[in-house]
Amino acid sequence: MSLLIVGSLAVDTIETPFDKRERALGGSATYISLAANYFSHGSEIGIVGVVGEDFPNHAWNLFQKRGFDTSGVEIVKGGKTFFWAGRYHYDMNTRDTLATELNVFADFKPKVPASVASPDYLVLGNIAPSLQLDVISQMKAKPKLIICDTMNFWITGAKDDLMKTLSKVNALVINDGEARLLVDNPSLVVCGHRLQEMLAPDSHRIVVIKKGEHGALLFYNKYIFSAPAYPLEEIFDPTGAGDSFMGGLIGYLTRWDTIQYATVKRAVVYGTVLASFCCSKFSTEGIEDLSMDQIYRRFRELQSISSFEDEPYRTKPMDESAGLM
Amino acid sequence: MSLLIVGSLAVDTIETPFDKRERALGGSATYISLAANYFSHGSEIGIVGVVGEDFPNHAWNLFQKRGFDTSGVEIVKGGKTFFWAGRYHYDMNTRDTLATELNVFADFKPKVPASVASPDYLVLGNIAPSLQLDVISQMKAKPKLIICDTMNFWITGAKDDLMKTLSKVNALVINDGEARLLVDNPSLVVCGHRLQEMLAPDSHRIVVIKKGEHGALLFYNKYIFSAPAYPLEEIFDPTGAGDSFMGGLIGYLTRWDTIQYATVKRAVVYGTVLASFCCSKFSTEGIEDLSMDQIYRRFRELQSISSFEDEPYRTKPMDESAGLM
Repeated sequence: MSLLIVGSLAVDTIETPFDKRERALGGSATYISLAANYFSHGSEIGIVGVVGEDFPNHAWNLFQKRGFDTSGVEIVKGGKTFFWAGRYHYDMNTRDTLATELNVFADFKPKVPASVASPDYLVLGNIAPSLQLDVISQMKAKPKLIICDTMNFWITGAKDDLMKTLSKVNALVINDGEARLLVDNPSLVVCGHRLQEMLAPDSHRIVVIKKGEHGALLFYNKYIFSAPAYPLEEIFDPTGAGDSFMGGLIGYLTRWDTIQYATVKRAVVYGTVLASFCCSKFSTEGIEDLSMDQIYRRFRELQSISSFEDEPYRTKPMDESAGLM
Repeated sequence: MSLLIVGSLAVDTIETPFDKRERALGGSATYISLAANYFSHGSEIGIVGVVGEDFPNHAWNLFQKRGFDTSGVEIVKGGKTFFWAGRYHYDMNTRDTLATELNVFADFKPKVPASVASPDYLVLGNIAPSLQLDVISQMKAKPKLIICDTMNFWITGAKDDLMKTLSKVNALVINDGEARLLVDNPSLVVCGHRLQEMLAPDSHRIVVIKKGEHGALLFYNKYIFSAPAYPLEEIFDPTGAGDSFMGGLIGYLTRWDTIQYATVKRAVVYGTVLASFCCSKFSTEGIEDLSMDQIYRRFRELQSISSFEDEPYRTKPMDESAGLM
């Protein structure tokens, strides 16, 4: 199955309480594609984005080795790649943005080449909702699933556009703060249901609310699934964790090519796994060289830490079962 | 099996964005005992605390109907019961304390009568750590499990006493903010392990970190269990939710009288169930009239929303399984 990812390609300078990395590889499309690649064959993955001439060779090599179709990545001559610099605080949950230089990303107009314009699965990374809409209009055939991300900036600044985009997508991945901002309700359960109503009606209306260290909530039709977080003792660099989550999730769905509840639940758990690996090294390093065995072992660990059994000999509700009271 | 609960007995005036209740029943021992009673027989439950002559008849009736042994509840003549008034904000996660009148609770010196001084299970509700220690010293026989609660006030104001108490208990139930304050580490996984080290060495060192709407983490020996929260759409009054959690947990353990990992996991889930019922009505009303069937149904719902299966036909790690890549 084919997967198209539209999003940012960036260069990040990251400071944490533990270390600093200058001009590391970043961007939502980068993390999503690298994470998704563990499930989909690289040859099935296309990227649409824009970079300057300074986009690191390391990145091109990574993409090429995996066989990504980068014909949709525009290289602006003499241009500079989107640059972000940030510093994480001691608790790793808060960060200061030290610099945001949009550079070539400021005038980004996604152009989807024919080779990748009929994907089975389409990911709209966190870009302007109007551009997300534009990408949908460039599809030559209706994807089986369109999944999108967004952020506070668009929720407050481009809400009308965002609502139009949401009405055309089948799935939304969003964090808890953004969900509350968009719905204006403190309850994440209420938020999840309201967000579902914003999505395309002819779909399972999949909403995933990411809660960082607290895991994620999946809303699928009328079902709710509560996914645990992977219990990391130490977070080394959380940059890209959300996009790695998206990559693991959509990679798994693309691979299995079914949008059934059980599959989507597993996809959310694999998203959690990729996000956890992302946090354990700087930049994309945590998701560059994993074995499927490492990934699967964390999936099983998550299953193990979240499972509990009923009393084995229970057959009836407690107050009806003789001898138990 | 017998269960002794030491804690506050109080009168609360509660304001929420939805409603207000004057002089409702409150206090940690109240919530814990009412929640625990669904699992243990009331006749096995003893309460140690102090009240004034104004302690509501409604409360005495509740306790009497359930058969609690209240010989350890001191009634101070002419005294007034511990009074708390608070107002919850729109998001229900924050509240303002409008009044705290300790009254007879200010001079509380727990006296454990012989009829309840040999419990199998002992709960030390949130009182001064020095009083918790004193209660332990009044035990005529070593309980099978001592479980305690604490709060910010004691962590910052009576840390040495608290550490002494912790070194004598087998289990601690604490919320995430308190855990981070006591351990001084942002990672709840690290907090859990460090808290375990503070507990009595000859035990399973059970630590439960409550995360409110995000569920709870259980640390048991070297195991971690991540329990989901019950997905409530609306929180009516969160007062007593933490104590109801404790009550459900210890009630279940007392009933099954085993401290094995699988049992403790279920106990944490039943704690979650009782906390969820507590939040759906004012004061103790949400946990006064439940059927075991209602409780069990929520247990099953929690099992359902948190469970996920591996691919049914998987037998080996992903990269070894022919035909899947």
